Amino acid sequence: MSQPLAFTLDEIRAYLAEVFPQIALGRAFEIEAIGPMSARVRLIFGPTHLRPGGTISGPSMFALADVALYVAILAQIGPVGLAVTTNMNINFLRKPAPRDLMGETRLIKLGKRLAVGEVAIYSAGDPEMVAHATGTYSIPARGD
Amino acid sequence: MSQPLAFTLDEIRAYLAEVFPQIALGRAFEIEAIGPMSARVRLIFGPTHLRPGGTISGPSMFALADVALYVAILAQIGPVGLAVTTNMNINFLRKPAPRDLMGETRLIKLGKRLAVGEVAIYSAGDPEMVAHATGTYSIPARGD
Amino acid sequence: MSQPLAFTLDEIRAYLAEVFPQIALGRAFEIEAIGPMSARVRLIFGPTHLRPGGTISGPSMFALADVALYVAILAQIGPVGLAVTTNMNINFLRKPAPRDLMGETRLIKLGKRLAVGEVAIYSAGDPEMVAHATGTYSIPARGD
Amino acid sequence: MSQPLAFTLDEIRAYLAEVFPQIALGRAFEIEAIGPMSARVRLIFGPTHLRPGGTISGPSMFALADVALYVAILAQIGPVGLAVTTNMNINFLRKPAPRDLMGETRLIKLGKRLAVGEVAIYSAGDPEMVAHATGTYSIPARGD
Repeated sequence: MSQPLAFTLDEIRAYLAEVFPQIALGRAFEIEAIGPMSARVRLIFGPTHLRPGGTISGPSMFALADVALYVAILAQIGPVGLAVTTNMNINFLRKPAPRDLMGETRLIKLGKRLAVGEVAIYSAGDPEMVAHATGTYSIPARGD
Repeated sequence: MSQPLAFTLDEIRAYLAEVFPQIALGRAFEIEAIGPMSARVRLIFGPTHLRPGGTISGPSMFALADVALYVAILAQIGPVGLAVTTNMNINFLRKPAPRDLMGETRLIKLGKRLAVGEVAIYSAGDPEMVAHATGTYSIPARGD
Repeated sequence: MSQPLAFTLDEIRAYLAEVFPQIALGRAFEIEAIGPMSARVRLIFGPTHLRPGGTISGPSMFALADVALYVAILAQIGPVGLAVTTNMNINFLRKPAPRDLMGETRLIKLGKRLAVGEVAIYSAGDPEMVAHATGTYSIPARGD
Repeated sequence: MSQPLAFTLDEIRAYLAEVFPQIALGRAFEIEAIGPMSARVRLIFGPTHLRPGGTISGPSMFALADVALYVAILAQIGPVGLAVTTNMNINFLRKPAPRDLMGETRLIKLGKRLAVGEVAIYSAGDPEMVAHATGTYSIPARGD
């Protein structure tokens, strides 16, 4: 089901930095790895992510899940236009410590019109999952 | 099922500004109204909300849904400790224009341990719904 | 956003009975009403719906939500091919008594490729919501 | 995070057959395996599962996800009372062929009050996932 990747790691970083500066690659997020139907994205911790109790906010974890899924899809389909999130379901499991988060993404469907993937979110260096998301992107018309 | 509100509008604004400064009431969000099992919260548009295409990002809408639900729950149960989001499911329906968003919340369950509500998100002044969320908060032990 | 209905109530009952006999209209479900972007469908209670404690099973409520959404979509778009569920999120709020359930559906998006709607489920004759679902159907290519 | 299993495979089959006859173990479902924070449950295909096009209905897949999660939780916590589903989110990825389905469950949180797990659903003998669910059960008060 998967195809050769459309980008190398350097290429996808350069592409996203250019077309999607709001992701703030290198400051807010970092793409750690891309692979077949998968990606690993880091949320770089900063004080804006905090909520009462010294933990990381839900919207920060949502943003990580959203970016990580987008990166995994883009790595497969290449620069073919703007995929948009249509649905995201997220379960918050544990309160993450105030440090970087890792989003491990796996695509479970890559169709012509819809891509579906799941994202497991961990505190960097800790094996306990802190949140889990499943999301759908609508992908623009392509030639396959 | 609903009970008298635990706060007036002024009281809940003052309370949240004190215990939850990260919400940035008056700058990022504004509580427009609270009512029985309901609340209306405004996301104050700013350039950090933008994504490519001149629309508002998914994480911004998620954050609005999360805050709006929290406000509706707090208005019912009062300052009894920290309720935390356990699940949020959000559907993105249309690309919102770059202006304020309104989150109209309705609680559909307020139990001892879990509260469930839905949030309809609109662009300010436009009747078309741009996103819809359903979320669950875990609420701390109370005396009822 | 809504258009004139594609069916009368009698027509949609006859159409569904013919093309989708598994729904068992008149025995398992009944279409009570269709309207602009909306439908009301009844689950006819029977012993197969029970689970321990004398309440109605989750899968029975899921099935009602799925059928009710399908009916609301079909009422708008007509007999244009097979729409399929791509996502359903359901919250179970209270244990329903062992009697008929009503699924009140409202479409919140009817696009060319995706339709999104919500379903509020009640015990017949009781105003307390027992479950709430939000679902997406993928709709086949049409001429608009 | 996981603890020793509360049942052997034979014990959990016998227990469920007794307290939850509606699952129809051996006729509608079969428990194939239980393990630490995991379970594998089979949906035994029958004509009631069909929908137009010769595929298996969404409610049938929902029921499999619901039972599989329940089995995985019960295997961990033992016969301590009735856990109930509070939320289920399911994505339908491909149309399954008309044969048995396998639900592979993994618990990602087993707290005192809530358990969260995911279920990957496959056609028996086919490695392509046909549906994916994430669900939450509320678990009754226990002595831990």
